[in-house]
Amino acid sequence: MSISFDPRNLLASMVGEDNGLTQAELDGGKAAAIAALKGFRVSFEEGKYGFPDLPLNKNLIQEIEATAKKLAGSFDTVCVIGIGGSALGCWALDCAMRGPHPVQGAHSSKKPRLVILDNVDPDFINHALDSMSPKKTLVVVIAKSGSTAETMGGFLIVREWLMDAIGKKAASRIIAVTSEARGDLKVLATKEGYTTFHIPENVGGRFSVLSAVGLVPAALIGVNIKKLCRGAAAMTEAAWTEDLESNIALSSALHHWLIWTLKKKSIQVAFPYSNFLWGTAFWFRQLWAESLGKAKDRTGAIVNVGQTPIAALGTTDQHSQVQLYMEGPNDKVYSFWVVEKAKKQIKIPKAKLGLDGFDYLGGQSMGKLLDAERRATEAALATSGRPNCTFTLERVDEEHLGAFFQMMEFETAFMGELLNIDAFDQEGVELGKKFTYALMGRAGWDEFKDRFADYEKKRG
Amino acid sequence: MSISFDPRNLLASMVGEDNGLTQAELDGGKAAAIAALKGFRVSFEEGKYGFPDLPLNKNLIQEIEATAKKLAGSFDTVCVIGIGGSALGCWALDCAMRGPHPVQGAHSSKKPRLVILDNVDPDFINHALDSMSPKKTLVVVIAKSGSTAETMGGFLIVREWLMDAIGKKAASRIIAVTSEARGDLKVLATKEGYTTFHIPENVGGRFSVLSAVGLVPAALIGVNIKKLCRGAAAMTEAAWTEDLESNIALSSALHHWLIWTLKKKSIQVAFPYSNFLWGTAFWFRQLWAESLGKAKDRTGAIVNVGQTPIAALGTTDQHSQVQLYMEGPNDKVYSFWVVEKAKKQIKIPKAKLGLDGFDYLGGQSMGKLLDAERRATEAALATSGRPNCTFTLERVDEEHLGAFFQMMEFETAFMGELLNIDAFDQEGVELGKKFTYALMGRAGWDEFKDRFADYEKKRG
Repeated sequence: MSISFDPRNLLASMVGEDNGLTQAELDGGKAAAIAALKGFRVSFEEGKYGFPDLPLNKNLIQEIEATAKKLAGSFDTVCVIGIGGSALGCWALDCAMRGPHPVQGAHSSKKPRLVILDNVDPDFINHALDSMSPKKTLVVVIAKSGSTAETMGGFLIVREWLMDAIGKKAASRIIAVTSEARGDLKVLATKEGYTTFHIPENVGGRFSVLSAVGLVPAALIGVNIKKLCRGAAAMTEAAWTEDLESNIALSSALHHWLIWTLKKKSIQVAFPYSNFLWGTAFWFRQLWAESLGKAKDRTGAIVNVGQTPIAALGTTDQHSQVQLYMEGPNDKVYSFWVVEKAKKQIKIPKAKLGLDGFDYLGGQSMGKLLDAERRATEAALATSGRPNCTFTLERVDEEHLGAFFQMMEFETAFMGELLNIDAFDQEGVELGKKFTYALMGRAGWDEFKDRFADYEKKRG
Repeated sequence: MSISFDPRNLLASMVGEDNGLTQAELDGGKAAAIAALKGFRVSFEEGKYGFPDLPLNKNLIQEIEATAKKLAGSFDTVCVIGIGGSALGCWALDCAMRGPHPVQGAHSSKKPRLVILDNVDPDFINHALDSMSPKKTLVVVIAKSGSTAETMGGFLIVREWLMDAIGKKAASRIIAVTSEARGDLKVLATKEGYTTFHIPENVGGRFSVLSAVGLVPAALIGVNIKKLCRGAAAMTEAAWTEDLESNIALSSALHHWLIWTLKKKSIQVAFPYSNFLWGTAFWFRQLWAESLGKAKDRTGAIVNVGQTPIAALGTTDQHSQVQLYMEGPNDKVYSFWVVEKAKKQIKIPKAKLGLDGFDYLGGQSMGKLLDAERRATEAALATSGRPNCTFTLERVDEEHLGAFFQMMEFETAFMGELLNIDAFDQEGVELGKKFTYALMGRAGWDEFKDRFADYEKKRG
């Protein structure tokens, strides 16, 4: 297993001092990085945050594998009902291990399809239901709080759809993943007898991919969750070391912190050169935005901090976004995600058509072209003063994926320390939730009904 | 057909003067908006830009419909090979009319699948080939220049894959969409006898969805391209009027220009509350980024202008990005895209579980929940001083989609005038292309081989 981080194109020597880091700036930041690691370690040892040790939970892994084994063959579709952190991890895993949806090919009970209901769009839900057979569908409903409106609404629909088709057996086709201690989903799961897995209280949604939240759907679609956790555990070990050379989570946090705050790069483009990492880019997008987008720092001072993450896909987005990246405002830092070894290479046939636009490509592999395009883009950006860095995964398999997830989670936690913010809450979404409850007539939210009416009145 | 634009949450009265527009600012901008319309009209009449009248090309529409009719039933997959503007339009159309891929359900020769090869990732290509049957696949290769490396490489592979399976008949299963006057693809298409459609010289990739580029794949998967163009034509008519009330392309351009330049909103979030408009958001992302991200203005002055577009999906991204949007830097403007009428509504069953987290939802429709979530998010953003606006489409069908595309193309063209930049070139991608040619050993690019070597040497 090998994941490396190449920060050379973040340096002032490559992109100039306005846009890149000097050795003095890097040296100056190192003490802060070590302090960030130590600070986070203290909170971890106090039990505040559970994600670092999730991959060590062998009992859970075994339990999930046993459940998956028992159910295998009885379904051709896994329908996950969840949103945000309860959806993006399993999408990332499905996409990385089996490819993006348009090219996954036919599904069967030996190769079940993953359908994620992470929205309440009626047309989306109707199409999803039409595309699944209730007798061959296993439902996994995921909500830590047990009261997320989108997930509860979707689940009531799917639960009835199951019951209409298979009656009382429905309960045996539902797995709940939720808090053990609280929430209406836990109460319902107990009452109706669903197989239930629990989310530790000290693991938030966006840090939960290696808890039952990600592992249950992954195991059901055939991902080797033992290997996934093995890769992640290796990264956890590396992420606790104070040596910046071997701790890429810390090294990346340091570089990104400096380039963001000193060089005013307010946007980070996560730029995988692999369709298989497209889901992971969206998983990262939540992790980074929700953890690091904060109104206040830990002293209570208003800071309105946050680096906006963007998912771009190479080479695809070279023909969509790179014009802006090359010539627009120099407000971005680019993180290329590279896969060194394809699962299987493919050669461009020798054409000898006598046509220059084709013939130079013949006989070369698609992997070489992909690599050339990415290196060309890195170079074009760097020589235009646009800072960029590169993460290289030897291959996309369970071990690398687990390690990459864990690397980014540690990086995010360290970044929270460096910014002196709480990377683990999400107070900013509360107002919208309260307005939604009020608009849906949930009891107890009259205050927000009134506030919403005031807003509408003001708007005219 | 009805598309409306609601700018009320962009006003200073809603979000404060630091973040919203005053009446004086709006009044002050109106003359510039009218001048932008007139300026673009002059260029259009000179024949510089062809997109406004694309929907009026009845002969082309008939020709494409005839081709689609002739081939119908002989394929279960349409394989488009194209990238950027040659891929995003047909993705937008497929997604809008038939749903996002995971829930499209089974495909057949009556309901062919659209596979878009818009990348050179070998694993992606291999998976795509494995998922298609060459005897049941119709290939559409799209490249205006006829020399795009990704498309030419992908086409050589798919062409051989076809020939291996069906020999000389391959040529009858390939449609080329390219420039009439130039390019190696045109030469090959003529030599091998592919059915060929042409892209007008004055229509660039990102403005080409209503040319053969978008219409051919759309017709092949059963989209009614006549209705699509009818909707677009109606918008063209509206977009040439000087009345800001009835010209939403111009009104939106004016508002977005002012909020971007006066209130420093450097990011625009395109925020559809419909999974069916997800592809359209990515189409818009290219249109906006590539057209308006420019190093120089028309006087040659260095401006490095560009508003970074982001695609977000409601409600899904409320649980991923809204924390950042509510509490992070106030550097964004949000454009909500709303669909008023679902294709089919779906009700949340009455549950009466005695559980507050479920029971208030029972008996209400998913559409109501989706609407409440979006209105709640708009209100939460506005009351936090975050400017936002709303486009409402009565429904997602061909007419509305065509009109919406055309509205955004006009808006972008007007915005180019307002910024005094050339919205129709893309010089910024040339350097990366040249480095790629050099790295792939294409003849004649030695200068860039040397420049790349210099870059690598400097990087160490």
